Amino acid sequence: MPIDNRRFAGIDVGGTKCLGVVWQDGRIIREVRRDTPQGADDMISTLVEIVRELGDVHSVGVGVPGLVTREGVLRAAPNLVGVSDLAVGPQLREVLQCDVAVDNDATCAAVAEWSVGAARGVDDVVVVTLGTGIGGGLVSGGRLVRGTNGFAGEIGHMVVESSGPQCVCGQRGCWERYASGNGLGYLGRLAAEQGAAKRVQELAGSAEQIRGEHIRQAALEGDNEALVIVDSFARWVALGLTNLTNLLDPAMIVIGGGLASSGNVFLEPMRRWFEELLYSPQLRPHPQLVMATFAEQAGAVGAALLPKFAHISDT
Amino acid sequence: MPIDNRRFAGIDVGGTKCLGVVWQDGRIIREVRRDTPQGADDMISTLVEIVRELGDVHSVGVGVPGLVTREGVLRAAPNLVGVSDLAVGPQLREVLQCDVAVDNDATCAAVAEWSVGAARGVDDVVVVTLGTGIGGGLVSGGRLVRGTNGFAGEIGHMVVESSGPQCVCGQRGCWERYASGNGLGYLGRLAAEQGAAKRVQELAGSAEQIRGEHIRQAALEGDNEALVIVDSFARWVALGLTNLTNLLDPAMIVIGGGLASSGNVFLEPMRRWFEELLYSPQLRPHPQLVMATFAEQAGAVGAALLPKFAHISDT
Repeated sequence: MPIDNRRFAGIDVGGTKCLGVVWQDGRIIREVRRDTPQGADDMISTLVEIVRELGDVHSVGVGVPGLVTREGVLRAAPNLVGVSDLAVGPQLREVLQCDVAVDNDATCAAVAEWSVGAARGVDDVVVVTLGTGIGGGLVSGGRLVRGTNGFAGEIGHMVVESSGPQCVCGQRGCWERYASGNGLGYLGRLAAEQGAAKRVQELAGSAEQIRGEHIRQAALEGDNEALVIVDSFARWVALGLTNLTNLLDPAMIVIGGGLASSGNVFLEPMRRWFEELLYSPQLRPHPQLVMATFAEQAGAVGAALLPKFAHISDT
Repeated sequence: MPIDNRRFAGIDVGGTKCLGVVWQDGRIIREVRRDTPQGADDMISTLVEIVRELGDVHSVGVGVPGLVTREGVLRAAPNLVGVSDLAVGPQLREVLQCDVAVDNDATCAAVAEWSVGAARGVDDVVVVTLGTGIGGGLVSGGRLVRGTNGFAGEIGHMVVESSGPQCVCGQRGCWERYASGNGLGYLGRLAAEQGAAKRVQELAGSAEQIRGEHIRQAALEGDNEALVIVDSFARWVALGLTNLTNLLDPAMIVIGGGLASSGNVFLEPMRRWFEELLYSPQLRPHPQLVMATFAEQAGAVGAALLPKFAHISDT
């Protein structure tokens, strides 16, 4: 590949914050942060402001939390107030008069890890983002799996326990009901109901207030009950990873998102359960299970790289 | 594509029977059947015999029920007695001195439906083969999804009810425990235990002997209890199809295998449950749910076409 020292802008739109970066020569050279606004008009003008503040750039990529069509229209975004059916791509293109690409935030994170991060050079990759929910990005045979509408990779809504708790999507027992930050909190509250989360409950104030972060903190302190909850959580994570391996046979699975940054307390039991649950472990090399290179910047970096890699995702 | 009137041989190796076909000018021009032998040596010599009986051919494709490496080695085949780690591709190539391709039987069925059957010309396709178990073949962006080892598409072992019944693979609640021919029998036996499968039980002789075919027969007769079991079965099928849609966003799902040939008694409730369960149905065009073009010949036809489409599956 020839040397490319153009400046690529990428913006990750989160539920509460927007992060803009400029990616140049293989690294982030500039960052801009803004609160995520409410409503469609303010969303577009905030994105334009961020781009202007990032300075002169070759192209703009945007990652948004929701279903994005191949034309860059955000169809649905449960975590963005007052935003639906927003033509993010077309509107930004008109205002900015440059190349604009828009995709799902987890797809952007996958692009970052696959093109310049942990899975660089690997042709069959699953990127799993464990945050409040679960996001996913899939690479098969050296190409991004987009699906016919651009909606592929909604791995958090894979049902793994059809008799399980209700999910916002209408189903029961979706993977993200157990294996996300929200899921970790749910498992903690279940443990507290059985009197098996004393330190966690102390940190949270009450059983009802237990969230993932309280279990994480207690586990990092070495609290045994918290480690048992983490083990149960890790089993749920591994169960979904096993499903994805049976479906897609990846060479590598990259775990990103907030929970990934907690290190071995989470990674070690995930690895153990993954080895335990994988179908025919004696018959195939196991997919490598690795932590993401990029922490909270994965979405913005991947968004910046979207226009550059568009030819790879084209079918 | 230029006119291609070469003769392609394809063999589908089943648990009890092998079917060989010659595909020429878009149709089957010859068929040969043999019992499936036991043991590795007899397997290779039977395949050679079938090819010789099929006559002069350009290339040979073989579909086998198990995990197949990209080099054509059958790693594991739970339904073939005495066969494991068999180098089907390399051995046949040496004896036959022609182009030989080997792949999983469900992948072959997917190739048949995608290249010359129901999903011809569709770029994002999931082919689901509902037989004794569940097989799968995935097409994304106009390419076969093979995975890093060639093991992709093991959709039957997607866990959908982790507290469910034990599966041969070591997990609990795999999709094929509910949504295959075996799964239909299981749901029938559950119904019989509750006294809700009288006609089905009569056909089977006893509750313990209920198999999928008895429910199918009673349902085709219009028996209400059997139709309730079929409805529950259809819900499990649809649940897995919903998972696959969330993961891969296909434009079309093709249902093949023995159960597909039972027509609307199965298809209608599957369609109804699929509409009901699909995430964000108002936000996306639903994948088309269609029955396979090829019945029991899908595997052999797809095997015949493997060498022809090898360039598409190459990554």
